[in-house]
Amino acid sequence: MATLLDPAARGRVILVGAGPGDPGLLTVRAVEALKNADVVVHDGLIDARVLDIAPPEAQRISVAKRRARHTLSQDAINALIVAHVKTGAIVVRLKGGDPFIFGRGGEEVEAVRAAGLPVEVIPGVSAALGCAAEAMLPLTHRDHASAVSFVAGQCKGLTDQDWSGLAGQGRTLVIYMGVATANGIADKLMADGVAPDMPVAVLERGTLEGHRAIRTLLADLGPMVDRERVQSPAIIVVGEVVELSDAEDKLARWARVAEGMSA
Amino acid sequence: MATLLDPAARGRVILVGAGPGDPGLLTVRAVEALKNADVVVHDGLIDARVLDIAPPEAQRISVAKRRARHTLSQDAINALIVAHVKTGAIVVRLKGGDPFIFGRGGEEVEAVRAAGLPVEVIPGVSAALGCAAEAMLPLTHRDHASAVSFVAGQCKGLTDQDWSGLAGQGRTLVIYMGVATANGIADKLMADGVAPDMPVAVLERGTLEGHRAIRTLLADLGPMVDRERVQSPAIIVVGEVVELSDAEDKLARWARVAEGMSA
Repeated sequence: MATLLDPAARGRVILVGAGPGDPGLLTVRAVEALKNADVVVHDGLIDARVLDIAPPEAQRISVAKRRARHTLSQDAINALIVAHVKTGAIVVRLKGGDPFIFGRGGEEVEAVRAAGLPVEVIPGVSAALGCAAEAMLPLTHRDHASAVSFVAGQCKGLTDQDWSGLAGQGRTLVIYMGVATANGIADKLMADGVAPDMPVAVLERGTLEGHRAIRTLLADLGPMVDRERVQSPAIIVVGEVVELSDAEDKLARWARVAEGMSA
Repeated sequence: MATLLDPAARGRVILVGAGPGDPGLLTVRAVEALKNADVVVHDGLIDARVLDIAPPEAQRISVAKRRARHTLSQDAINALIVAHVKTGAIVVRLKGGDPFIFGRGGEEVEAVRAAGLPVEVIPGVSAALGCAAEAMLPLTHRDHASAVSFVAGQCKGLTDQDWSGLAGQGRTLVIYMGVATANGIADKLMADGVAPDMPVAVLERGTLEGHRAIRTLLADLGPMVDRERVQSPAIIVVGEVVELSDAEDKLARWARVAEGMSA
């Protein structure tokens, strides 16, 4: 058990990116870290098959944050990690995707270092990359997009965030955690000048069972998310590259004849 | 050998992201694909230890593109892949990082599909993520960056590319393949309104032996790349998050006193 180990030799934290969901998309080093874990502190969306890689006797602690019910504050998570490391445990802090892309990994690194404890980071396949590969959606393309940007729909309030210029011709924008605010996201982007007929895809449960890739035009994003009852986790991709993907067309009939629509 | 196999059962291509360099950052599925490869068609920057995962009898074909000497055009690469798949081979097309982020994977998918052949994509840890994890550089951060964008310094001509708005306060910009044009990149960003004293890091040979993370301010980017004799592969990160990283300060003495510099 963790508390019996020599703190000098073992007490450390490894921030590990768990990738987009499919256990096969863990990195080799992530698998090794999990196999050596005394304690696994994990987010809510980690697949059970991933958690099963850790030894049976390893402690598994969920710090799942749900929109309605914040199980643990970031400060509480940081304190929990530090407390376990101080027992001499190898703590694997397992985060969906990559720790440094909307994972708040930077804050956890700061907290662990502030406590004078060692920390390392194992990167992961961020959700955008995993979902795009599955949907055959090239995030950049010589003819269609020379820049790709990532933002988060629930990172701060939508209105507090400046996304101007990130979407539009020649640019791909990926929005993490945007399903609940899809209507607001479409309004925000159109207010910033993105064309209402810009193609947009929703990649739901990417790389997991029951995954779906669906597509419409920006003005129909919110309605499509409602009609199709899209659930988290899902990412939204805005840009011309969406047309190249295998996503299924779900454009509402009204939208096909609405002003400004070209489809 | 590939040519003896049943085309109906085996002829297919798997586009595989090899990650940032360290073989430990391959995904589990990438390792599996390599172990099953009859033919590996790979870029120039793939580590020998990664290529060694394929069976000894697998054919290894380098299509390395170097700046001065284009070994193979994209059309020639596409034709090569298609020709091998038609022999019934399992062709692993191994690309540094992720196939859909500056990997031209989209074009290869189109070419294989145009030939009526099956193709799948295994995502990888893109260079930005791998290098950032190693340098403890959070690409997004609640207090410093709510958006991160990726562009490529040699994707098209620098002047043909529109990067306006991608760098600046609250935004992280990562430039792939930008070492050779670092001077032009700094000029371009400053002309777009990015402050000359914006922190910028160069992450050289990320996740590989001899890796280095160095840091200066935007106006000193080109001179620092020259002084430090930075070599490809390397990525450039522009944004406030650079200050949080473990990168070593390399700011020129002249720059500390130059107008507009705050360091």
